[in-house]
Amino acid sequence: MKRIEVIPIPGIPEVKAGADLGAEVLRALRRAGIPLLKHDVVVVKQKVVSKSEGRLVLLSKVKPRRRAVQLAKAERKDPRVVELVLREASEVVRSGHGVIITRTKQGFVCANSGVDRSNVGPGMAALLPTDPDRSARRIRAALEKGSGTELAVLVTDTFGRPWRLGQTDVAIGCSGISPLVSYAGKKDRFGYRLRVTEPAVVDELAAAAELAMGKLKGIPAAVVRGASYVRGDAGAKALVMPRERDLFR
Amino acid sequence: MKRIEVIPIPGIPEVKAGADLGAEVLRALRRAGIPLLKHDVVVVKQKVVSKSEGRLVLLSKVKPRRRAVQLAKAERKDPRVVELVLREASEVVRSGHGVIITRTKQGFVCANSGVDRSNVGPGMAALLPTDPDRSARRIRAALEKGSGTELAVLVTDTFGRPWRLGQTDVAIGCSGISPLVSYAGKKDRFGYRLRVTEPAVVDELAAAAELAMGKLKGIPAAVVRGASYVRGDAGAKALVMPRERDLFR
Repeated sequence: MKRIEVIPIPGIPEVKAGADLGAEVLRALRRAGIPLLKHDVVVVKQKVVSKSEGRLVLLSKVKPRRRAVQLAKAERKDPRVVELVLREASEVVRSGHGVIITRTKQGFVCANSGVDRSNVGPGMAALLPTDPDRSARRIRAALEKGSGTELAVLVTDTFGRPWRLGQTDVAIGCSGISPLVSYAGKKDRFGYRLRVTEPAVVDELAAAAELAMGKLKGIPAAVVRGASYVRGDAGAKALVMPRERDLFR
Repeated sequence: MKRIEVIPIPGIPEVKAGADLGAEVLRALRRAGIPLLKHDVVVVKQKVVSKSEGRLVLLSKVKPRRRAVQLAKAERKDPRVVELVLREASEVVRSGHGVIITRTKQGFVCANSGVDRSNVGPGMAALLPTDPDRSARRIRAALEKGSGTELAVLVTDTFGRPWRLGQTDVAIGCSGISPLVSYAGKKDRFGYRLRVTEPAVVDELAAAAELAMGKLKGIPAAVVRGASYVRGDAGAKALVMPRERDLFR
């Protein structure tokens, strides 16, 4: 019976725009004496990916438009942050109680379009990577080249959920792994045919990795070893619910 | 740097109503040579908990009311199953595309009030435990007594999410663990004060455990070892978004 291991990667330094994140992760793994094994899943937090891709914004340079000022007032937020939230959004899904839920240009529904001020330094905000699947592909290419082994890579962020308090990490980008595993049409041991069972494996891996990384320990990456998954390259964008099946749109 | 391990528990037999699930888990652990260590989190799937609590229903005994027949027709479902879904629901949140999203009497929003025909045998359906936090407390008491060590227990189920395809496991019951860890008011390493960061640790643990259990392997329980959590007994019901903060109600 296969065990799964979640291994935090310590010692990744503060990453600057233009940094080769794959190379940084490889160096940290080497220093920590953690080898990469075939089909390991390397999970990297969005924040460090955004930093490496230059997706930090100095708030003092942001000029909020009228709509941002109004929404910021209603939700008691910084109008410059709200301006960024609106720029990153394709629509505002809901707002209220100091929360702005948007659909990002990538298609994900989350708070504040993923714009976040934590762990980036004073007066700064981080935006999501423009194309987190592409980020994951790039990091995977670097890690596979450096390690000579076949891997999967996730880029993860922390999302809230409607109806349920708290947040969990989910995959906003992935490479080398199929985001969903479909059991539709498979039979259980009583012969009952499953219809909709389709675990979002990348989101479960993201959540597992978060447990080892935490929020304030400065650990932006982890290795998940021993998990079963299907290789593929649909990307996390394949998790976006198509409009015609969306009951909440 | 602490690693987390997810250990599937093999050899739990098919469970009957009235079975002492804690004792079954302990026996399986002993046979598999897996000791329980202090603060291990034992994760048990809802289905096996429901079975042990006699929450299986023979569909041939269910007489659907008019509303169930209508909804079943609209969503092309078995009217007897829909009858159970409605009985277990406090409200229907949405329906369409063959999906019925309800709020359960426990307060969780999920598909079909958690009523499910997989892995229960022909002509049968499983309902959620009446009080999954109580189920978790009972199992924990048995496991702590048998092992002489302090543990946490989760009862988990597979939930879909709006806007995102696929499902992940979440905790519908928990004991010995605080479902959320609040970072509100804590400062990041740049001095920025976090405001809403509150990981739903039990849901991340549930997702991690699912990776080791799968859907068709007949493994209804796992141990998660090495995860940091806060002890507490608020139960998973504390995850239900209060009405006054709910933007999707």
